[in-house]
Amino acid sequence: MPSLLDLLAVDHPIIQAPMAGTSTPAMAAEVANAGALGSLGVAAMDPAGAHAAIVAVRERSRRSLNVNVFCHQPAHPDAAVEAAWIERLRPEFERFGAAPPKALREIYTTFLHDDAMLSTLLAEKPKVVSFHLGLPPEERVRALLGAGIVLFGSATSLDEGRRCVAAGVHAVVAQGYEAGGHRGVFDVEAPDDRLTTVALTRLLVRHLPVPVIAAGGIMDGAGIAAVLRLGASAAQLGTAFVACPESQADAGHRAALMSNAANHTVMTRAISGRPARCLANRFTALTREVAPREVPSYPIAYDAGKALNLAAKAKGETGFGAQWAGQGAPLARCLPAARLVGELVAEMA
Amino acid sequence: MPSLLDLLAVDHPIIQAPMAGTSTPAMAAEVANAGALGSLGVAAMDPAGAHAAIVAVRERSRRSLNVNVFCHQPAHPDAAVEAAWIERLRPEFERFGAAPPKALREIYTTFLHDDAMLSTLLAEKPKVVSFHLGLPPEERVRALLGAGIVLFGSATSLDEGRRCVAAGVHAVVAQGYEAGGHRGVFDVEAPDDRLTTVALTRLLVRHLPVPVIAAGGIMDGAGIAAVLRLGASAAQLGTAFVACPESQADAGHRAALMSNAANHTVMTRAISGRPARCLANRFTALTREVAPREVPSYPIAYDAGKALNLAAKAKGETGFGAQWAGQGAPLARCLPAARLVGELVAEMA
Repeated sequence: MPSLLDLLAVDHPIIQAPMAGTSTPAMAAEVANAGALGSLGVAAMDPAGAHAAIVAVRERSRRSLNVNVFCHQPAHPDAAVEAAWIERLRPEFERFGAAPPKALREIYTTFLHDDAMLSTLLAEKPKVVSFHLGLPPEERVRALLGAGIVLFGSATSLDEGRRCVAAGVHAVVAQGYEAGGHRGVFDVEAPDDRLTTVALTRLLVRHLPVPVIAAGGIMDGAGIAAVLRLGASAAQLGTAFVACPESQADAGHRAALMSNAANHTVMTRAISGRPARCLANRFTALTREVAPREVPSYPIAYDAGKALNLAAKAKGETGFGAQWAGQGAPLARCLPAARLVGELVAEMA
Repeated sequence: MPSLLDLLAVDHPIIQAPMAGTSTPAMAAEVANAGALGSLGVAAMDPAGAHAAIVAVRERSRRSLNVNVFCHQPAHPDAAVEAAWIERLRPEFERFGAAPPKALREIYTTFLHDDAMLSTLLAEKPKVVSFHLGLPPEERVRALLGAGIVLFGSATSLDEGRRCVAAGVHAVVAQGYEAGGHRGVFDVEAPDDRLTTVALTRLLVRHLPVPVIAAGGIMDGAGIAAVLRLGASAAQLGTAFVACPESQADAGHRAALMSNAANHTVMTRAISGRPARCLANRFTALTREVAPREVPSYPIAYDAGKALNLAAKAKGETGFGAQWAGQGAPLARCLPAARLVGELVAEMA
């Protein structure tokens, strides 16, 4: 069996996390050219947007690219929950001289149902396609494998890891509880054991027959070396890349990440409708006491969250952003992506 | 500055966690004789009991011993909360043919106020005294330092770590969110960032001027080697030792730990009154929806929890125990403590 690095055709056991909405073609290309695995998160793009992003990476790099899709169950619309959510947020919109949306929409299509996205991936054949929030049906996996694409699943538990392996992926991303952004739990209503990077990585390495990629709280070469010592075949870093100039993170997100605000993150489902780790900000404070059942289904809640952030930003308030970050946020650096990869490699030695 | 291992006069960067109620003099002595740091948790003992336990260790080992005390703020009695708690648990007691206590008591004295415990420690001079759940006042720290005792503080955040250093400790235990047993937060009412072992260890190593000891989710030599790579000077393992024959864990706790039940742990304050990580069991299921303000103050709630466990055990039901365990529980082994230390050392290589 080839090693994971051989399979991926990369030089270093470092993966830039996909980060839908934050990663860019420039970031993925710079990371790839530096010998690590660059990634695009296309969960917030339509197939044409994903195609354009993949083409944009290829214009800058011929090295390996990972394209990440969200495999969540489709939203469960609930008019009463959504109306109550709009009313709950109305005073916040009004504070910024705006009105909330009249109704909330399912703003993204899950990859489970997105035939055009599948066709795009099969046509473009990125080196890797990675799944988050679940797994696609068997025939989609078979089609991707048939195109020679390497597949990653994402797991937050041993059970999810085993389901990834049963689905036929080549490697499993062990996403620890400390990781920023959307938590990969397949079923948001099931109890969550909140396994951390150390506990989950070691458990998956001991029990799964495929390479494990550790993710969550890893910010520097020492962190990468540590998870390799746990038996991971590579480390995936997201928050470490958020402040890179190639990132799409907005000024408010960057400023918060490079300030003392980075010391506090919270797992919340109030922003998007699914649990995700965010810098503690005005949005997370406002929704701290909200019960999960009061939040509309993903991505319906996100429609409201994005509208509120836009209304607030129009008045100069950045504290309602989806400022995703993992617990390692206080160690974030503002460096060009390729230089960051170089530093990480040097620190691992 | 001498290395932490030189300061402790131990051979290996391995600390058996104190684990009040679970560790024993035999465990501490066996661990110490195997070249690691053995520990006694005396939070549930009175000074005479602590003295006897220290003497019992010394009869078996002349090597270094760590004695751990709980430095929590004294309980805030609240008759209404306690009466409501008793009523909430009454049906459970009745299920086992028992009645709940008429009133709940503060069953342990905090080290902050325990002059006799301080005198015992000053007389017995264990190599190390470690603080959990807070820090003692300056004059107590000064007295212990004056007796030549090495001091550890326990921190769950950078702020707590800095307070430990300001108090004058020689090393700080970075207790990750995945750790079993009582979570060391100084103030249970403050927001908890739930920093995990990876995130917290790296943050403390980067910012504190004293050695850091990583704790939480570490179960084997790979885990120890990983946290050393993060910059920790040693690893502290608790759950790894719970199933050792020298442990005081009862049969129900051991059976749960060695079963599939080990796959699920929860952080709960319902058992003792402070957040602690426990195997998911009947007690944690019963109290899953309880709001923190409904639980009596530590250790008043523990008086009820222990009584309920005794009533249940008398009828053969072991699911109400304080079955403390960290997220690494599925990797627990049942080995004599000295042999476990030997395995850990071999695995680190």
